[in-house]
Amino acid sequence: MDAETPEPTAQDTTPRDTAVEAAAPSRRAVIGWAGAGLALGAAAAGSVAAATMHEAGPAAPGIDSTVDIPFYGDHQAGIATPVQDRLHFAAFDVTTTDRAALVKMLKEWTKAAAAMTGGREVGTGATGGIPEAPPDDTGEALDLPASRLTLTIGFGPTLFEKDGVDRFGLRARRPEALVDLPKFPGDRLEPGRTGGDICVQACADDPQVAVHAIRNLARIGMGVVNVRWSQLGFGKTSSTTPEAQTPRNLMGFKDGTHNIAGTDDAALAAHVWAAAGEGPEWMTGGSYLVSRRIRMTIETWDRTALQEQEDVFGRSKGEGAPVGKQKERDTPDLSAMKKDAHVRLAHPDSNDGLMILRRGFSFTDGTDGLGRLDAGLFFLAYQRDTRKAFVPLQARLAANDALNEYIVHVGSGHFACPPGIRKPGEWWGQALFG
Amino acid sequence: MDAETPEPTAQDTTPRDTAVEAAAPSRRAVIGWAGAGLALGAAAAGSVAAATMHEAGPAAPGIDSTVDIPFYGDHQAGIATPVQDRLHFAAFDVTTTDRAALVKMLKEWTKAAAAMTGGREVGTGATGGIPEAPPDDTGEALDLPASRLTLTIGFGPTLFEKDGVDRFGLRARRPEALVDLPKFPGDRLEPGRTGGDICVQACADDPQVAVHAIRNLARIGMGVVNVRWSQLGFGKTSSTTPEAQTPRNLMGFKDGTHNIAGTDDAALAAHVWAAAGEGPEWMTGGSYLVSRRIRMTIETWDRTALQEQEDVFGRSKGEGAPVGKQKERDTPDLSAMKKDAHVRLAHPDSNDGLMILRRGFSFTDGTDGLGRLDAGLFFLAYQRDTRKAFVPLQARLAANDALNEYIVHVGSGHFACPPGIRKPGEWWGQALFG
Repeated sequence: MDAETPEPTAQDTTPRDTAVEAAAPSRRAVIGWAGAGLALGAAAAGSVAAATMHEAGPAAPGIDSTVDIPFYGDHQAGIATPVQDRLHFAAFDVTTTDRAALVKMLKEWTKAAAAMTGGREVGTGATGGIPEAPPDDTGEALDLPASRLTLTIGFGPTLFEKDGVDRFGLRARRPEALVDLPKFPGDRLEPGRTGGDICVQACADDPQVAVHAIRNLARIGMGVVNVRWSQLGFGKTSSTTPEAQTPRNLMGFKDGTHNIAGTDDAALAAHVWAAAGEGPEWMTGGSYLVSRRIRMTIETWDRTALQEQEDVFGRSKGEGAPVGKQKERDTPDLSAMKKDAHVRLAHPDSNDGLMILRRGFSFTDGTDGLGRLDAGLFFLAYQRDTRKAFVPLQARLAANDALNEYIVHVGSGHFACPPGIRKPGEWWGQALFG
Repeated sequence: MDAETPEPTAQDTTPRDTAVEAAAPSRRAVIGWAGAGLALGAAAAGSVAAATMHEAGPAAPGIDSTVDIPFYGDHQAGIATPVQDRLHFAAFDVTTTDRAALVKMLKEWTKAAAAMTGGREVGTGATGGIPEAPPDDTGEALDLPASRLTLTIGFGPTLFEKDGVDRFGLRARRPEALVDLPKFPGDRLEPGRTGGDICVQACADDPQVAVHAIRNLARIGMGVVNVRWSQLGFGKTSSTTPEAQTPRNLMGFKDGTHNIAGTDDAALAAHVWAAAGEGPEWMTGGSYLVSRRIRMTIETWDRTALQEQEDVFGRSKGEGAPVGKQKERDTPDLSAMKKDAHVRLAHPDSNDGLMILRRGFSFTDGTDGLGRLDAGLFFLAYQRDTRKAFVPLQARLAANDALNEYIVHVGSGHFACPPGIRKPGEWWGQALFG
């Protein structure tokens, strides 16, 4: 970053620092950059009042895409937040051994994230007055509203220790819950889609906004981090808004009927947020994220009888009703399903009440060398303690689920997502590194 | 296809056969499939009135995403149509040598395309009453409106002749304008992203709808065609609606300011539609499509000075104004730009008035092995005669454009897109194969 914005000094402890936000023009309000002799001048200064006026973008029913998601709060946004339409997820390798450089980048990332989630540009939005410098912001989201952008950071096991080396003096702070995931039956994990020292989940209702956010973080992190892998997603496959229509996965089935609602504070406390005393203090109020790139053997599935498809899931395809029931939200009779039906095996009643917050997206990444669609589900799940949630659940599914005939896990990640940032001046990872 | 819908017999010659459409329930209206013992029954029958009632989906400003794009007409939809938000483009290899099988597939594709662009399912929407059969439709778009879906077909040079073989007796019908594109300076074309016997461009305001459409065509074509390559796109980079805000490409610049408007019939006739007597009759009213996967060296670009970026394009980054001007749509003074500026070289005034209809999309396909973003522009251009449009234009750009330092063409396609289908019963390619 050639030109930094001044560090906000406000000590306002409200979740959202509106004073800081009002002081910077929104992207939409900026009608010309300072480069090439065209000054912002009065136009930008006069546009402050319009800073929160966004044009309507795409949104789920009942969701107002023009209302930005607050960046500051007790928990990171992007977990309980109503699921946005698009995803760009990136896992980064830290390439430096310099702890100070990493901390500096995390501070810069935090400022950029606060700006972008507020619909503003990174940095000064231009070149800090130096035409010879690259712009602070890559510019492709310049005319676009924030589109409910959230940016959620997580720290992978290898940030704490890699090949036996305590890289940044963090080994003692690694949460016990941040386990190295076991190898599950059937896993065919590709190293280039697995792991990562740091992850950032960008969700927005506009893919250009999500892509812009990850790209600008990668640009800021040049020399400190490299993108190890990234994943675009669409067609959210699990909703955290039970009142909305349940989305469908690429197998054509409704997915996430029985998910944790983002408004259900009791369920979130019980199943999603790491509690005080259960792990290191820097994770209290945070959550553990597991990502799995689950490829579907689409062509095989598409040639499978409807009855078989419905047996595999334990629900009807059209309505999504559990076997023997009429409506999607009718209480399932698990005993009416086949023993290896996906819903039966994954249901809380079969798992001592275990629940995870699913937040996955469909993906289609073109075709492989054999002309088969490289498509499936990019599974994202947040939980209070992975050892008591994803690990036993996936062990059960990997061993028994009828769905395994049609899917293969090809990528995996595990990240400790710290609690939220409460006010400007704090930074991502502060309690971990501080 | 295990269960076919009856061929419509209506001889209605209006562009859109509303009678046929009203007779089939829209996807949204179908609340349960016929599989697994849950009958559609009265619910579907009673829903006909709701067939054109869609919930609002994402759309560009001024575009109503709930109004379906007519499938029938003089020209194929998806060319002059206001550009949708998302793209799934597929190039197919024909794997059979059986002309009759290919014709049968094209007929089935046409019926499926008419259904899907009308927001309806493929086939019966279930299994034709046979639970042992796979569903006619893969189902993931079951609850979604058509989202302005258009499907546009084109035929590549290799369909007419490949390795000297007249595969389907079409060699004599190959349009002269459907040239084998020359190798341009700097081309680094990958075979796996280049060519194809048939292409289908799916555009919609919802990616799940576009992906669903290509997938179902691929499924129908099993044993006849294979997907050779496919490309997802977002953030349309050229608008055919000049009244809307000009979109930005991933270099952060407005793209397509001076594009052909989809409502400008005179310009379309002059530059886009193949005219009678200029080529084979089966192409009259059609258009020639060139696709180019243009990868941007994003990381290099992002480190380039703003002044250099603006010099390369010949426009300012923020406003998009031509060099020395104030507003995006001010008439450019080409002589004020650098000699190798992109806008100067590509402008009609530098090319004897040559214009092409651009309809490209941004893409981001993860990262390459070096952690660099695999991102750029999937360029799509429609023209009356490629020999007089893309070929000389690209020859000029490839030799001189300052932008070449930051881009590389890695994929290419050339397709003859026939005119539109005027009524049910006609099929894609009928005049070519007939």
